[in-house]
Amino acid sequence: MDGIEVETLANPELSDPVFIEGLPGVGHVGKLAAEHLLDEFDGELVRRIYTDDFPPQVSIDDEGVAELTHAEIHAVDADGTDLLVLTGDHQAQSNAGHYRLADAFLDVAEEFGVSRVFALGGVPTGELIEEYTVIGAVTESDQLADLEDAGVEFREDEPAGGIVGVSGLLLGLGKRRAIPAACLMGETSGYLVDPKSARAVLEVMQTAIGFEVNFDSMEERAEEMEEVVSKIQEMQGQQSGMPSDDDLRYIG
Amino acid sequence: MDGIEVETLANPELSDPVFIEGLPGVGHVGKLAAEHLLDEFDGELVRRIYTDDFPPQVSIDDEGVAELTHAEIHAVDADGTDLLVLTGDHQAQSNAGHYRLADAFLDVAEEFGVSRVFALGGVPTGELIEEYTVIGAVTESDQLADLEDAGVEFREDEPAGGIVGVSGLLLGLGKRRAIPAACLMGETSGYLVDPKSARAVLEVMQTAIGFEVNFDSMEERAEEMEEVVSKIQEMQGQQSGMPSDDDLRYIG
Amino acid sequence: MDGIEVETLANPELSDPVFIEGLPGVGHVGKLAAEHLLDEFDGELVRRIYTDDFPPQVSIDDEGVAELTHAEIHAVDADGTDLLVLTGDHQAQSNAGHYRLADAFLDVAEEFGVSRVFALGGVPTGELIEEYTVIGAVTESDQLADLEDAGVEFREDEPAGGIVGVSGLLLGLGKRRAIPAACLMGETSGYLVDPKSARAVLEVMQTAIGFEVNFDSMEERAEEMEEVVSKIQEMQGQQSGMPSDDDLRYIG
Amino acid sequence: MDGIEVETLANPELSDPVFIEGLPGVGHVGKLAAEHLLDEFDGELVRRIYTDDFPPQVSIDDEGVAELTHAEIHAVDADGTDLLVLTGDHQAQSNAGHYRLADAFLDVAEEFGVSRVFALGGVPTGELIEEYTVIGAVTESDQLADLEDAGVEFREDEPAGGIVGVSGLLLGLGKRRAIPAACLMGETSGYLVDPKSARAVLEVMQTAIGFEVNFDSMEERAEEMEEVVSKIQEMQGQQSGMPSDDDLRYIG
Repeated sequence: MDGIEVETLANPELSDPVFIEGLPGVGHVGKLAAEHLLDEFDGELVRRIYTDDFPPQVSIDDEGVAELTHAEIHAVDADGTDLLVLTGDHQAQSNAGHYRLADAFLDVAEEFGVSRVFALGGVPTGELIEEYTVIGAVTESDQLADLEDAGVEFREDEPAGGIVGVSGLLLGLGKRRAIPAACLMGETSGYLVDPKSARAVLEVMQTAIGFEVNFDSMEERAEEMEEVVSKIQEMQGQQSGMPSDDDLRYIG
Repeated sequence: MDGIEVETLANPELSDPVFIEGLPGVGHVGKLAAEHLLDEFDGELVRRIYTDDFPPQVSIDDEGVAELTHAEIHAVDADGTDLLVLTGDHQAQSNAGHYRLADAFLDVAEEFGVSRVFALGGVPTGELIEEYTVIGAVTESDQLADLEDAGVEFREDEPAGGIVGVSGLLLGLGKRRAIPAACLMGETSGYLVDPKSARAVLEVMQTAIGFEVNFDSMEERAEEMEEVVSKIQEMQGQQSGMPSDDDLRYIG
Repeated sequence: MDGIEVETLANPELSDPVFIEGLPGVGHVGKLAAEHLLDEFDGELVRRIYTDDFPPQVSIDDEGVAELTHAEIHAVDADGTDLLVLTGDHQAQSNAGHYRLADAFLDVAEEFGVSRVFALGGVPTGELIEEYTVIGAVTESDQLADLEDAGVEFREDEPAGGIVGVSGLLLGLGKRRAIPAACLMGETSGYLVDPKSARAVLEVMQTAIGFEVNFDSMEERAEEMEEVVSKIQEMQGQQSGMPSDDDLRYIG
Repeated sequence: MDGIEVETLANPELSDPVFIEGLPGVGHVGKLAAEHLLDEFDGELVRRIYTDDFPPQVSIDDEGVAELTHAEIHAVDADGTDLLVLTGDHQAQSNAGHYRLADAFLDVAEEFGVSRVFALGGVPTGELIEEYTVIGAVTESDQLADLEDAGVEFREDEPAGGIVGVSGLLLGLGKRRAIPAACLMGETSGYLVDPKSARAVLEVMQTAIGFEVNFDSMEERAEEMEEVVSKIQEMQGQQSGMPSDDDLRYIG
């Protein structure tokens, strides 16, 4: 394997597909949101992307069968809207690797003739969240109005440090290719895997893209988390506000 | 030297050889197991593999003669079964280096027409071990039954973080080349060089591959370790359960 | 994007332009000085430089529009003297990346036929500064007299560790291309963003290059900092001399 | 600059030259020894070696003139014996960089038809040294007898971790090119710049290669260090045995 390898599994004809990225990040918001789409809608695995900038690692499934670390792209039919959903277990591990990987993702997006790209993620607030706002960033200002109508907030110079990782580069490199791209970031504490923040992001997308998704399964995960949050808040009376690793493992 | 260099020392005709990897890792289980095969059976050095992703280092032998860090592959006749045994002092030092090195190893395996690959290693339990279980992972589910018969345990989603390093990649990249590969991981505390765990791995392999190896010399090393473990357990009465660096040096 | 990409936005005819580098560094002295030139004089963006050795990141503007991290070069008319002013938010993130980037900057400098290069920066003293000296280094000793006349001090073996980063390489690689280059380093505490040190550097450059720039806006920033410095000096009566992160944020 | 650049300054005809490497390392033993040869004998700069794996840095001389970080090779006439002496301020900064650099040095060695290579360095003992032993390692066992006659000690499996960095690779890669190479390592505390250890290494080389060098200037530096060592030993009565950074700066 040399640098990066894109394996083609299927090449379905898609109509103006929307590309949606949900790799791991703050609160696993983007990953939870993207995986929820794969759970709820019918889809087909179209690409596997391998790179020597992922960790040298295999995952093991329930049976004991190994699979080389990779990202994958599914073609998903969301209420008649074609989506290309990118998921995976890792970000790249170096600067140059991030650029290479984001370029490979955009190559696939262009092959399928995507109309726009959404990079999903979380923005850490450092506090437990009551109301889940979704912050946005776009490649061109003509995207702002529609997204504001869908409930996305655009704040002056926020997030302060810009957007890093593959989400950031899908915008940065997408803009240079003239592919309209937006990043939707659910506010999240940053301490917990956060299905409620993922839901907030998906709700915005429902309006922006025009599909409807069922949230029952996500609600269950969110309720599990509610219990953990309650426990944490109890504990906060006693000591520090940072949940322990055990708490995080419970709800991960 | 540019990237990676494979030096050919011999090209014996082998019959359906089995490739066995034993590079350093947890408890040095894989390395001890592979080196035991080289000690007990007749063999011939067939390849040296150099890479600029190994540390910039020479080892010095008893006489004072230096040798550039490398991995080596011996053709070994194990009771009439041909083995290719890979040993060395280092893993690669970067992500891309791991991929390059594992690909080079698989190239050699394919040159010799191997029928399957075994990657040997240890899985850390954090506790001193009474009974040495061998955990497995495979590239294809049709390998499971035979290995279970040989005593390998396959556990749901274990090891939890997948398998990292060259062992992981021999499975991940081997699978992509359609070379059947299995990883055999002896349970081990993770604190000690563990010949007993290495023996457990070799016993499984005897059944799985079909050869018999004498364990007398390994028994000696294991008894030395037993003494150290006793000392440590005495010490545990007094203080922490982690052996000190001096203990580890003694038995390394 | 592969390695480095230089985007051409304009190719104005310039007369013996002087290349001025002001990337982030100690006290942001070079960056403040270069940006002040862009604020005060008319200019035109001529090049954007992207590299996969910058962080994988986009910045977000006031509206919420993202822009891929890059360095940029403006052609500036300073009182009839042509300048090429290099600014940006990042240095390279690896050794090889620094070399590649500095070479790319010098390529642009040569395309425009620059007569000389000034790399601007700060040199940390560890103490709050009363009088702002500018320390220099050059590629050829025939540059010394003019710069000394302009008020630059050259001190034996100072800065002690040499000059690192892009500023250092513009001299080191510039010298190998026979482009006369000088580094002008304003003394600065190293704790604070330091507009006064940037002004000292610009005052030296006015004489050395022959232009005049208005310092009113810089004076404002400097006064803001004066207040912070006073506060810090008050605090120094009580505790340590290191300003807190909050102080730094206030004046950054 | 791309990867590595070797600049040719002169190509004198040399008779069976001996290549001597003295880059920075433990106690700066190799560097002090090599620089002493340049101080005492007539020589000519024949090569400058630049690489983007050196730090992105220029050094500044007494006048304020900058020079890009590089290694350099002088042809030296030592009592009628031709030497090629390699010195510099840096080792490479990555694994692959070390390999590339050592290969470039050996290329130059082969261009000049060197008969053998000596890599000079220090081996840390962790204690102040009374008697300065020189430990050796070679590429071929037929070099052992002569070096033992010259006073070099060869110890079983010492240094324990092998030899790292450019010194190690000159042996490891030299051996693969069939260039006889030896590493001479002066014992040194590891805390101090150690001219006495450098002298011990040079004394061995005088016998091994066949030249005589004056040690007066080295004696001066050694005496300066003696004073510091005395001070440190006084201080040891009071507190810890590790000299402070200030002490080290004084004698560096």
